[in-house]
Amino acid sequence: MGHVLNCKEAAKVFLDNIKMESEKLREKGVNPLLAIVRVGKREDDIAYEKSILKNCEKVNITGQVHECDENIDMESFTKLIQGLNQDRFVHGILVFRPLPKHLDENVIKHIIDPNKDVDCMNPLNFARIFEGDLDGYLPCTPAAVMNIIKYFNIDVKGKKVVVLGRSMVVGKPLAMMLLKEDATVTICHSKTENLKEVVSSADIVAAAIGKAKFIGSDYIKKDAIVIDVGINVDDNGNLCGDVDFEAVKEKASLITPVPGGVGSVTTSVLLKNVINGAKRIHKS
Amino acid sequence: MGHVLNCKEAAKVFLDNIKMESEKLREKGVNPLLAIVRVGKREDDIAYEKSILKNCEKVNITGQVHECDENIDMESFTKLIQGLNQDRFVHGILVFRPLPKHLDENVIKHIIDPNKDVDCMNPLNFARIFEGDLDGYLPCTPAAVMNIIKYFNIDVKGKKVVVLGRSMVVGKPLAMMLLKEDATVTICHSKTENLKEVVSSADIVAAAIGKAKFIGSDYIKKDAIVIDVGINVDDNGNLCGDVDFEAVKEKASLITPVPGGVGSVTTSVLLKNVINGAKRIHKS
Repeated sequence: MGHVLNCKEAAKVFLDNIKMESEKLREKGVNPLLAIVRVGKREDDIAYEKSILKNCEKVNITGQVHECDENIDMESFTKLIQGLNQDRFVHGILVFRPLPKHLDENVIKHIIDPNKDVDCMNPLNFARIFEGDLDGYLPCTPAAVMNIIKYFNIDVKGKKVVVLGRSMVVGKPLAMMLLKEDATVTICHSKTENLKEVVSSADIVAAAIGKAKFIGSDYIKKDAIVIDVGINVDDNGNLCGDVDFEAVKEKASLITPVPGGVGSVTTSVLLKNVINGAKRIHKS
Repeated sequence: MGHVLNCKEAAKVFLDNIKMESEKLREKGVNPLLAIVRVGKREDDIAYEKSILKNCEKVNITGQVHECDENIDMESFTKLIQGLNQDRFVHGILVFRPLPKHLDENVIKHIIDPNKDVDCMNPLNFARIFEGDLDGYLPCTPAAVMNIIKYFNIDVKGKKVVVLGRSMVVGKPLAMMLLKEDATVTICHSKTENLKEVVSSADIVAAAIGKAKFIGSDYIKKDAIVIDVGINVDDNGNLCGDVDFEAVKEKASLITPVPGGVGSVTTSVLLKNVINGAKRIHKS
């Protein structure tokens, strides 16, 4: 039976380190500050916001919420972002997405200052990842996967890693980050032929397709390592990943659970990005 | 025995189309113009320049060479690029690389107007490829591979495609372009374990590692399709690809030669980019 990776423990270690860094900055008179921009009152935005603010408090980062009316026009919204860009007390800007349709994300993403873009929205930050430069801001979920890989000393160098999913939020940046660590990366998706055969040849599988329990044990090579990025709801209304955890854990050597897996680490990436932002702005 | 893809014929068709488009633009009073920026007198730069100018002439695009002294300082060089950005008669800017060390490519690449960046140097253009938006400027070599794939009706959808090499010039953008066409893409490199096993599972292999005749027939599945991006010199001083052509052509179903393969198509991508630049600037 496979070992279940205790990602909550990892997250605690990451947050403790962030808290230490935050306190060091405060000693120097820099108060790390994350500006959260929320348009309207979508339930999941508010839940995410609460969770971020709770974690901000834990690590001594100030969370500052900018709530906009859901009908805010493009001009006012742009001005808000530009104001945050210019505000030297703001170290990170997080804009909740998706934005309402009348606010063009393809324009907004260019407006946000790449130096404060802690959620990696600006194409300039994405381009750096593509170039294999991981010193800039990394998108939270794939960076959380990489942090888990490093925390648990998983060796990806030269290994066959299959990434399931090709989104800009997870699959593609994750593939680039794994490539940077010398993994042999295969990107699979809904159009992949012989999916089971491809996935079951992998030493490491990272699933990010958003299909509840889709990956059964027949997709997994014996003793493979399985990282489940999916967050779905199963037929009984319970949270579950893209992987059929109960079945796959018997075959895998290491596996992340859902809940309590990758998702429990993502916020720490966001907050670490805020710390990095504060350091960068403080230096310049 | 495999069929050898006649890429020269394809290149001729591409150039004929470009010529037609160029003439249409000229009828509207727009004279497509490519500005070539060369620093110093490196032999391979001059050879490349000659070949581009020859092809420009063929398709009725004006090639305008800006030769700089090899000691040109950053300020003057930046001014030259900015001047070309602003010159409304210039539709495409090609800066020969690598630049001498005192000219920082990481700065220059941001200065070149993304709308005239026909060699895909600006990260904003790279980011678009990463996002799967292939309507912008594409880097010439991987785009040449995709044009060959389309010209010869090679179906990549769902197929296992192995890209050998992970450079920003070929491997990574090619992987993204193939992914956009729904291929299942694996990126291999010098650190890949069991390389032979991985490559020989592929339906389509694109080799871009720069090692003369490295890929022998034992790397290739019977009836696989082989696209050779490498341009090397063999022990006898002859041009050759990354693939051992004579051996592999017996096993592959389709194969591109070197010379006369991908390399003969790349310049047509550059010139098509100039036409697209002229159309874009003319519209706005």
